[in-house]
Amino acid sequence: MPEEIDLRSDTLTKPTPAMRRAMAEAEVGDAVIDIDPTVERLEHLTAEILGKEAAVFMPSGSMANQVAVRGHCERGSEFICEQDCHIYQYEQGAFASLSGLVAKTIPGQGGGLTVDQLRGQVRANTDHFVRTRLLCLENTHNRGGGRILPQTEVVQSCQWAKSQGLATHLDGARLWNAAVATGSSEAELAAPFDSVSVCFSKGLGAPVGSALVGSREFIEQARRTRKLFGGGMRQAGIIAAGALYAIENHRHRLSEDHELAKRLGEAFQSYDGFSIRGDSIETNIVAVEIAPRRGTAQQWVTTLGDHGVRCFPISDQAIRFVTHLDVHSGHIDQVRDIMDRLVSANG
Amino acid sequence: MPEEIDLRSDTLTKPTPAMRRAMAEAEVGDAVIDIDPTVERLEHLTAEILGKEAAVFMPSGSMANQVAVRGHCERGSEFICEQDCHIYQYEQGAFASLSGLVAKTIPGQGGGLTVDQLRGQVRANTDHFVRTRLLCLENTHNRGGGRILPQTEVVQSCQWAKSQGLATHLDGARLWNAAVATGSSEAELAAPFDSVSVCFSKGLGAPVGSALVGSREFIEQARRTRKLFGGGMRQAGIIAAGALYAIENHRHRLSEDHELAKRLGEAFQSYDGFSIRGDSIETNIVAVEIAPRRGTAQQWVTTLGDHGVRCFPISDQAIRFVTHLDVHSGHIDQVRDIMDRLVSANG
Amino acid sequence: MPEEIDLRSDTLTKPTPAMRRAMAEAEVGDAVIDIDPTVERLEHLTAEILGKEAAVFMPSGSMANQVAVRGHCERGSEFICEQDCHIYQYEQGAFASLSGLVAKTIPGQGGGLTVDQLRGQVRANTDHFVRTRLLCLENTHNRGGGRILPQTEVVQSCQWAKSQGLATHLDGARLWNAAVATGSSEAELAAPFDSVSVCFSKGLGAPVGSALVGSREFIEQARRTRKLFGGGMRQAGIIAAGALYAIENHRHRLSEDHELAKRLGEAFQSYDGFSIRGDSIETNIVAVEIAPRRGTAQQWVTTLGDHGVRCFPISDQAIRFVTHLDVHSGHIDQVRDIMDRLVSANG
Amino acid sequence: MPEEIDLRSDTLTKPTPAMRRAMAEAEVGDAVIDIDPTVERLEHLTAEILGKEAAVFMPSGSMANQVAVRGHCERGSEFICEQDCHIYQYEQGAFASLSGLVAKTIPGQGGGLTVDQLRGQVRANTDHFVRTRLLCLENTHNRGGGRILPQTEVVQSCQWAKSQGLATHLDGARLWNAAVATGSSEAELAAPFDSVSVCFSKGLGAPVGSALVGSREFIEQARRTRKLFGGGMRQAGIIAAGALYAIENHRHRLSEDHELAKRLGEAFQSYDGFSIRGDSIETNIVAVEIAPRRGTAQQWVTTLGDHGVRCFPISDQAIRFVTHLDVHSGHIDQVRDIMDRLVSANG
Repeated sequence: MPEEIDLRSDTLTKPTPAMRRAMAEAEVGDAVIDIDPTVERLEHLTAEILGKEAAVFMPSGSMANQVAVRGHCERGSEFICEQDCHIYQYEQGAFASLSGLVAKTIPGQGGGLTVDQLRGQVRANTDHFVRTRLLCLENTHNRGGGRILPQTEVVQSCQWAKSQGLATHLDGARLWNAAVATGSSEAELAAPFDSVSVCFSKGLGAPVGSALVGSREFIEQARRTRKLFGGGMRQAGIIAAGALYAIENHRHRLSEDHELAKRLGEAFQSYDGFSIRGDSIETNIVAVEIAPRRGTAQQWVTTLGDHGVRCFPISDQAIRFVTHLDVHSGHIDQVRDIMDRLVSANG
Repeated sequence: MPEEIDLRSDTLTKPTPAMRRAMAEAEVGDAVIDIDPTVERLEHLTAEILGKEAAVFMPSGSMANQVAVRGHCERGSEFICEQDCHIYQYEQGAFASLSGLVAKTIPGQGGGLTVDQLRGQVRANTDHFVRTRLLCLENTHNRGGGRILPQTEVVQSCQWAKSQGLATHLDGARLWNAAVATGSSEAELAAPFDSVSVCFSKGLGAPVGSALVGSREFIEQARRTRKLFGGGMRQAGIIAAGALYAIENHRHRLSEDHELAKRLGEAFQSYDGFSIRGDSIETNIVAVEIAPRRGTAQQWVTTLGDHGVRCFPISDQAIRFVTHLDVHSGHIDQVRDIMDRLVSANG
Repeated sequence: MPEEIDLRSDTLTKPTPAMRRAMAEAEVGDAVIDIDPTVERLEHLTAEILGKEAAVFMPSGSMANQVAVRGHCERGSEFICEQDCHIYQYEQGAFASLSGLVAKTIPGQGGGLTVDQLRGQVRANTDHFVRTRLLCLENTHNRGGGRILPQTEVVQSCQWAKSQGLATHLDGARLWNAAVATGSSEAELAAPFDSVSVCFSKGLGAPVGSALVGSREFIEQARRTRKLFGGGMRQAGIIAAGALYAIENHRHRLSEDHELAKRLGEAFQSYDGFSIRGDSIETNIVAVEIAPRRGTAQQWVTTLGDHGVRCFPISDQAIRFVTHLDVHSGHIDQVRDIMDRLVSANG
Repeated sequence: MPEEIDLRSDTLTKPTPAMRRAMAEAEVGDAVIDIDPTVERLEHLTAEILGKEAAVFMPSGSMANQVAVRGHCERGSEFICEQDCHIYQYEQGAFASLSGLVAKTIPGQGGGLTVDQLRGQVRANTDHFVRTRLLCLENTHNRGGGRILPQTEVVQSCQWAKSQGLATHLDGARLWNAAVATGSSEAELAAPFDSVSVCFSKGLGAPVGSALVGSREFIEQARRTRKLFGGGMRQAGIIAAGALYAIENHRHRLSEDHELAKRLGEAFQSYDGFSIRGDSIETNIVAVEIAPRRGTAQQWVTTLGDHGVRCFPISDQAIRFVTHLDVHSGHIDQVRDIMDRLVSANG
C-alpha cells in the first residue's frame, strides 16, 4: 500500500518541525487579563499586511466571520452574499442562530457578484422590511473552485455598497492564495473592504487560528464579541507563534501549491468526461465536474480512496482536490498515474 | 373630484354595518384567563373549514406565520421557501430576528416550487450545516399576482417534504380566494400541509385578525408562542365577531372580486406596453408590467393617483391593483376610462 | 346558586353597552398601510395624558413592555428590575427569548427599589460583563398588592438611572389607578420615565389594548418593532374606540374600585389568621396572606369558589382579589358574609 | 525593584519547559475533518477522570459553560443559578444574547444553594411563565472565595432538580482544586451532575482550553454547538498536549497552592481591619474583606501594586489573591512582609 495522498483540504497540513519549535519557544501572557505578547505581534503583523488599523486573533475562521457579520449588522438587519459562500452555507447558520440576522443570497458566477446583480437589492426603508446593512464577498471562492474574484468587480461592488450605506466584509480565508496568484498585495486586495477575515490554518499550514482585521473601533468591538462567543483564550501565544511562523515562512511558497493544482487540473481536463469548474485553475483548489456516464462523485471519492487518494465530493457530480504544504510533485504524478489507469479501465 | 378608488390592497376594506352590528353584540370573555366564547366559535369554525384539528386566533397574519415557523423549526434550523414569499420578504425578517432561523430561498415560477427545484435542498447531517426542517408555500401568491398554486404541484412538493422529514406550512392569507376560484374547498387545498395561516382582514373584509390551524398539539404550542409574541388579547370576541361574520357572509362573494379583477386585467392587456404578470388573472390581484417606454411604476402610481385611482408599485416597472369588498363594477369602468385617456395621451 | 362574583382580575371586565356602541360606530382605516383615525385619536390622547410626545397602540401590555425593553436595550445588554415585576415574571421571558436580553433582578419592598438598592448595580465596562442599559419599574405593583410606588423614591431612582446613562421604563398597566388614588396626574407620575406602558383592558374596562408612550423617535422605532412582533393590525379603530371610550368615561370611576377594595381588605384584616400584604389597600388589589393554620391559598380558592367567589392564589399562602367595573358594593357585602360564615366555621 | 508577584488569577500561569516540550511533540490531525489524536486522548482521559461517558475539548471555559446551558435548555426556557456564579455574572450574558435564555438568580451562602432555597423555584406550567429546565452550580465557587460546595448539599440539590425534571450542570472550572482539597475524586464530585465543565488553564497551568463532559449524546450535540460558536479548531492537539501534560503532572500539586493560600489568608486574618470571606481558606483563592477605615479595595490594589504585589478588587471593599503554579513559598513571605509594613504604617 503506497503512502496516502490526502487532497481533501489544505486544513490538513501539519506543523513542520521548525513551526513546532517556534511554538514551543513562544513568549506568552494571559491574553484575557493582560496581553499575550506573541498574539499581539501576530495581530500587528496581520493588520499591517492587510493594510488595516487593527487585527484580532480568533480560534477559527467561522468565528472571525460570524463576529464580523454581527459587528456590522445591528439587530434586525440582513447582509447580502453570494449563495454558495462559506458564511451562508458552512457555518451552521450562526448569523441567524446566534445573531438573529437574515442572509439575502444571490447566485453568483464562480463566487463573484457584479454590480448589476447587486443593484436594487437594498431594501426600502419601510416597516415591512428587514434593514440591509452589509455586503459579504469571499476571495478566493471555495465552492467556485478556488477562483480569484476579479478585483475590478470587487472594487465596483464595494463602491456600490458604500454608496448605499452598506458595510463590506471579505471572507479572505484564502486571500493569501489570491495575493500570491495575482501578484497584488493582500493589502491591495483587502483595500475595498471594511473588514477581512484571514485563516492561518489552511494553505499557510499553522495548526489553529484566524484573524479579523478592520478599523481600530471595529476590532475593539470584535474582541468583545469574541469573548461572548467563548473565543477568549489565555496563553494563546503558543498557537499564535505557529501562525506567525506560517506568515513569515509559508506565504510565498503558496505558488508551489498553485503549480501543483494546475498540473492536477490539466490532467483531469485531458480525461474524457472530466472537466474543471471555471475552466482554469487559479489557485490551489481543483473542482472536477464528472460526466454522469463516468459515474457519481461519491463513486470516484470511493474509488480514488481505494487507491490511496483522498478527495471530497462537493456535489452529486463534482469532487474537489486541494493542494497544500504536505503535497509534493510526486504526489501529483501518482494521482495522474492512478487516474490514467482508472479512466482507461473505466472508459 | 370624483370618489377615490383605492385598489392598493384588499386589507383596506372597512367593516359593513351588519358586521359592525355583529361585533357590537358579540358575547365576550377574558381569553387570557378563561376563554372568550366568540373567539372560541371562530377558532372551531376556522379549524373545521380548513379541515384541521384546531385553530388559534391571531392579531395579524405575520404573527400567524411567524408563530408557525417558530413552532416547526427548532433552534438552529432553516426553512425552505419561494424567494418572493411574504414570510421571507415582508415580515421584517422576524424568523431570524425573533427566532434565529435561516431562510433558504428558491426562485419560483409565479410563486410555486416544483419537486425538481426542491430535490437536493435538504442539507446533509453534518456540523457545517444548519438543519432543514420546514417547507413554506404561499397560496394565492401575492407577488405572483394572486396566482393559485397548481394543487398537483403542491401535493407533490408536500409529499417530497414529508419524505425528507420536513414539516409543511402554508401561508394561506388569501386561500379563501383560491378556494372560490378553483371550486376546491379550503380543506382540500389545506390538506397537504401540517399548518396553514388564513387572514380575515383581506378579501373577507374583517377589520382585524388571522388564524393559524393545525394539529391540536401544534396549536396548543402556538397559543403559548402567541402569548410570548404579545398577541394574547382579553375580550377579543369583539374582533373575532367581525371575522366570524366575514366567513359566514363574505366568503362566497370573493368571486365578484375575481370577476372585477379579470375585467381590469383585460383592460390593461389591451393597452400597448402593458401586460399582466402570469398572463391571466386568477383571483383578485392584477399585477401589471409596464414597458419602460411607457414610464416607470412610480410615475404611473402618481399619475393614476392624480386621477383618483390608487395602486402600489411592486417593482420598478410593475404596479399592483387589488379588488375587494369596497370596489364595484362602476369603479372598474372608471379606471378603464381614465386609462383610455392616459394611454392615448401618453402613446 | 347566587350570581358569581369574579374577583380574579380587572382584566375580566366586559364592555358596557355604551362602549360597544362607540366601537360599532368607530371611524376606521388601514393602520398598516395608512392610518386608522380612531387609533390615531387614541394615540394622541394617550400621549397627552401621559405627558409624552407620542404613543403607539398595542394589542397587549406584554407587547408594549417587551417592545419598550427591546427599544431601550441594544443587543448584548441587560435591564434592572424588581424581581417580582410583570416584565420579568409573567411575560414568558420574552426579553431573553425574543430579544436576547438579561434581566438583573433585585428583591424590592412592595415592588419598589430604592436608590440604595440600585447603587453599584451598573456593571463595569469590561468584556466579562453584559452592558447595563435600562431600569424598569412597575406602578402600581401587581405582586406588591396594588401598591403605589412612592413618587419621591421613583424620582430618585430615575435620577440615579439617568446619572448612570440608563434609560427608564415604567410598566404602568395600572398607572390610572395610581393617579386616581394619589391625586397626581398620570403625566406627573410618568414624568421621570423615558417610556411608559399603560393598559386599557384592566381597570378601564376596554376589551383589548395597551399603549406605549415616549419620545417621538422612540415611538417610531416601537411602531416598527410592533410590526416585527406581529402586532400590526388593520382597522384597529374598532378596538381603539373601546379604549378611547374607557379613558373618557371610566378613568375617574376607578376610585369606586379602590373604595370597594379597601372595604374588602378591612374585612379580611378583621379575621384572625388573615392579613393584608403591605398592610393597607392603596388601589384595587387585595393581596391576602393566610396563616398556615387557616389552610393553604389553594384551599381557600376552592372553598370560596364553591360559594361563588372567584380569586387567584398568588403564592402558597396568599390569594388575590381585584375590584373592577363589574364589581358592586353588594358583591363586597356578599363576600364578607360568606367569609364571616367560613371563618367562624373554620375557626 | 523586586520580582513582581502576580496573584491576580491562576489563569496567569505560563507553560513549563516540560509542558512546552509535550506540546511541541504532540501528534496532531485535522479535528474538524477527521480527528486529532491528542485531542481525542485528552477527551478520553477527561471523561474518565470525571466519570462521564464523553468529553469535548473547548477553547475556553465560557464556551464550555454556554454550550452546556444551551444544550440543556431548549428555546424559551430558563436555568436556576446562584446569583454570583460565573455563568451569570462573567460571561457577558451569552446565555441570553446567543441562546435567548433567562437566568433565575438566587443569592447563595458562599456560592451554594440549599434545597430549601430551591424549593418552589420551578415555574408552574402556564403560558405566563418561561419553562424552568436546568440547575447550575459552581464548585469551587470563585466569588465565594474558592469555597468548596458541601457535597451533601450538592447531592440534595441535584436530587431535588431531578425530581422536578431539571437537568444539572456544574461549572467545575476549579473542580480539580475541590478534589485535591477534599480527597474526593473528581468523579465523585461530578457524579450528581448531568454535565460538568473543567478548565485546564487555571490551576493546572495549561495555556489554553477547557472541556465539557456528559453523556455521549449530550456531548455529540455539544460538539455541534461548539462548531456553531466558532470553537472548531484544526490541529488542536498542540494545545491539547499542554492540557494532557497538566492533568498528568500538575493535578496533585494543587495542594501546594492551597497550602500557600492558607498561609496568605492567615496573614490577612492577623491584621486588624482585614478578614477572610467565608472565614477559612479552602482552596487557592483568598478573598479579603477590608474594613472601610482601612481604605477601599481599589486603594489596596494600587498600594500593593506599587510594592510589586498584584491582586484584583472583587467589590468596593474586597480584594482577591489566587495562588498558582508560578507562586512559591518565598512569595507569600514577601507579601506578608510588605503587608506588615503597610498595615503598621497605615494603622
